[in-house]
Amino acid sequence: MTTNAQTPKRNVLIIGAGGVAQVVAHKCAMNNDVLGELHIASRTIDKCDAIAASVEEKGSFKQPAVLHTHAVDAMDSEAVAELIKETGTQIVINVGSAFVNMTVLEACINTGAAYIDTAIHEDPRKICETPPWYANYEWKRKERCAENNITAILGAGFDPGVVNAYARVGYDMMDKGSVTDIDIIDINAGSHGKYFATNFDPEINFREFTGTVYSWQNSQWQSNKMFEVKRTDDLPVVGEQNSYLSGHDEIHSLSANLDVPNIRFWMGFGDHYINVFTVLKNLGLLSEQPVVTAEGQEVVPLKVVKAVLPDPSSLAPNYTGKTCIGDKIKGKINGVETEIFIYNVSDHKEAYNEVGSQGISYTAGVPPVAAAMLVATGEWDVGHMANVEELDVKPFINLLNDIGLPTRIQDEEGDRPLQFDI
Amino acid sequence: MTTNAQTPKRNVLIIGAGGVAQVVAHKCAMNNDVLGELHIASRTIDKCDAIAASVEEKGSFKQPAVLHTHAVDAMDSEAVAELIKETGTQIVINVGSAFVNMTVLEACINTGAAYIDTAIHEDPRKICETPPWYANYEWKRKERCAENNITAILGAGFDPGVVNAYARVGYDMMDKGSVTDIDIIDINAGSHGKYFATNFDPEINFREFTGTVYSWQNSQWQSNKMFEVKRTDDLPVVGEQNSYLSGHDEIHSLSANLDVPNIRFWMGFGDHYINVFTVLKNLGLLSEQPVVTAEGQEVVPLKVVKAVLPDPSSLAPNYTGKTCIGDKIKGKINGVETEIFIYNVSDHKEAYNEVGSQGISYTAGVPPVAAAMLVATGEWDVGHMANVEELDVKPFINLLNDIGLPTRIQDEEGDRPLQFDI
Repeated sequence: MTTNAQTPKRNVLIIGAGGVAQVVAHKCAMNNDVLGELHIASRTIDKCDAIAASVEEKGSFKQPAVLHTHAVDAMDSEAVAELIKETGTQIVINVGSAFVNMTVLEACINTGAAYIDTAIHEDPRKICETPPWYANYEWKRKERCAENNITAILGAGFDPGVVNAYARVGYDMMDKGSVTDIDIIDINAGSHGKYFATNFDPEINFREFTGTVYSWQNSQWQSNKMFEVKRTDDLPVVGEQNSYLSGHDEIHSLSANLDVPNIRFWMGFGDHYINVFTVLKNLGLLSEQPVVTAEGQEVVPLKVVKAVLPDPSSLAPNYTGKTCIGDKIKGKINGVETEIFIYNVSDHKEAYNEVGSQGISYTAGVPPVAAAMLVATGEWDVGHMANVEELDVKPFINLLNDIGLPTRIQDEEGDRPLQFDI
Repeated sequence: MTTNAQTPKRNVLIIGAGGVAQVVAHKCAMNNDVLGELHIASRTIDKCDAIAASVEEKGSFKQPAVLHTHAVDAMDSEAVAELIKETGTQIVINVGSAFVNMTVLEACINTGAAYIDTAIHEDPRKICETPPWYANYEWKRKERCAENNITAILGAGFDPGVVNAYARVGYDMMDKGSVTDIDIIDINAGSHGKYFATNFDPEINFREFTGTVYSWQNSQWQSNKMFEVKRTDDLPVVGEQNSYLSGHDEIHSLSANLDVPNIRFWMGFGDHYINVFTVLKNLGLLSEQPVVTAEGQEVVPLKVVKAVLPDPSSLAPNYTGKTCIGDKIKGKINGVETEIFIYNVSDHKEAYNEVGSQGISYTAGVPPVAAAMLVATGEWDVGHMANVEELDVKPFINLLNDIGLPTRIQDEEGDRPLQFDI
């Protein structure tokens, strides 16, 4: 792993102004001794201004500063490049819609800024493309990033992101070639008190579950339907929880980067969520393909469902309970078969009190700030495109321990914090 | 009751081209010795042409004739009046959307044609107006109909319509002033084989259940929510069935025209229907009020739900099972308390074989043809506006016995056909 010898990158531009961007902004402000000038941009500047006001109000800046706000259409790569240049941005944290990743990445390649995102690129017209997903868009730009010395860190949220780091840690702890299974389990045991709501942009949330569920089993892609395969785990703090085999970004890089025959992602759902989802899906209301009303209006049903659901960021004030996300990893240590669980537990209410967002946004928003800080210190300013598991994940996990997302490990020796001596 | 002395009205214009219009067209054709020239018009002439082709194909005309097709915007009252004049129409059977009743009625008033509909007028922007519903639109034109000698028969489908006739019959069979309860029960025990579908235009169907449930109890309007009050009956042919207190047109005229303290409407629903309805309603997807998508498009959610659901007319070929709709009437006969049930049972498959529509459309479409035939023979050509229970209902029930909707009665003497000696 090489690092750039040039001046440390510090100035940050946040793309997006949703619940995750709110967390990113607060955490950047709280660490602006490591990071430099902070900017935030989205299509609607009002949303950026609201985040800036929240950062101001909570007094989040470690060193006196302001969060500069901008309006930009992130689908317009040249406009983003222009903004990067104008603002002197050195690190872009892209937490906008999943549809803007490639235009923002292109802007970074063309301006020399480092790029960090938290979810895979999606084409709004397609759901669930051929695996591995990263090969459809991101990895096609791998060579150009290397040629141009561009640091591009893909999927640096919690999942993908921290769970990739957990996979790497478990993989490295075990005997070489001995890991048989990595099961990533994402449980939200919180309650938002609404009839129904999604914790992320409903459009992205539902798109995750309407397509084929790809998992990596016996070293090949396996296809299932959503809610077809269920598991039940007794987990720390949140207790017994059901989760379902789901398609998710991290499988598509971990399967390429680690020599492990079985890599699966499990998302926890309550019966009520499944019922609402099933009704909407069976009726065709989760379709990304337009329908025509009797009056001749062309409408994408999923966009209407999004319009009637609560804004995920509105859930934060009344959200209670915990999340538990982690990796169960099976393999051998010193020749003995073993299973370990590396995980984080977060609290919705604490997240809201700290940064004004709920726990799901918090777990997604803190890690890219940690990644940006590691780019700023040079440790992750690698000058090429990388998924998290390809990087040195120890300083990442240590830094997250310090800035709000502590990691714990469960193994034969018990349940304890995970911190590395570096 | 007076009848017009003028030349019998016979030529018919059908407004609308949905599943009910299909039944109306076939039944008019099968009785074109009583009725005269037949025309059908809707916004989309292709739908009219398809109905005309079906009438032709099944050889439904009793006497050689053709069903003439026209394109008309039924919201444009002058265009409808023009069409009435051009076609020499004397009876308009309006089975178009519930939003066009008043424009079509106005066209009849202005041209002298008789008017028949099967459901109450609705304003697309409002749901569930103040009771009695007929007073909001229809009855405001009562005087003008009388002044202009216009026969306007309101709500002459099955429910409202035939069930109003049943109420009248039961009321007249019992001791004067003794009837305490009329409970209209509408059960569809059929199966369409789809995940979910409505038997009528989904927009109208859902609008019936999203507003306040008005019932007439203790001689006043009572408000409930949908699915709040349930009853279970053991009914002829269809067996034990659950139904729920619902708002429905006929309560709003029967409560004004009959001296009965309790008049309620009960609609049968399966648990699956209720679940889908509840999810859609709670999410706000049944709203008739526009929402704005993230992209700025203004959309009425209910119209999108309609767009994704199966076209009700598409259900017919695979529909199996029976409907049972009737009135349970409590009162005294010769001083003795009694309860009678006057009802019809129809079969989805038989309806499809006869006229190419399912049973729900069949029960709604046959009665307005009977009404038109009674206008043509002069018996119902009353020269004023009337709800069905205000007319002489005996020839109506007898005629329905002959043309496909036989009435039966259950009382202390058993279960038998109901036919009147006139």
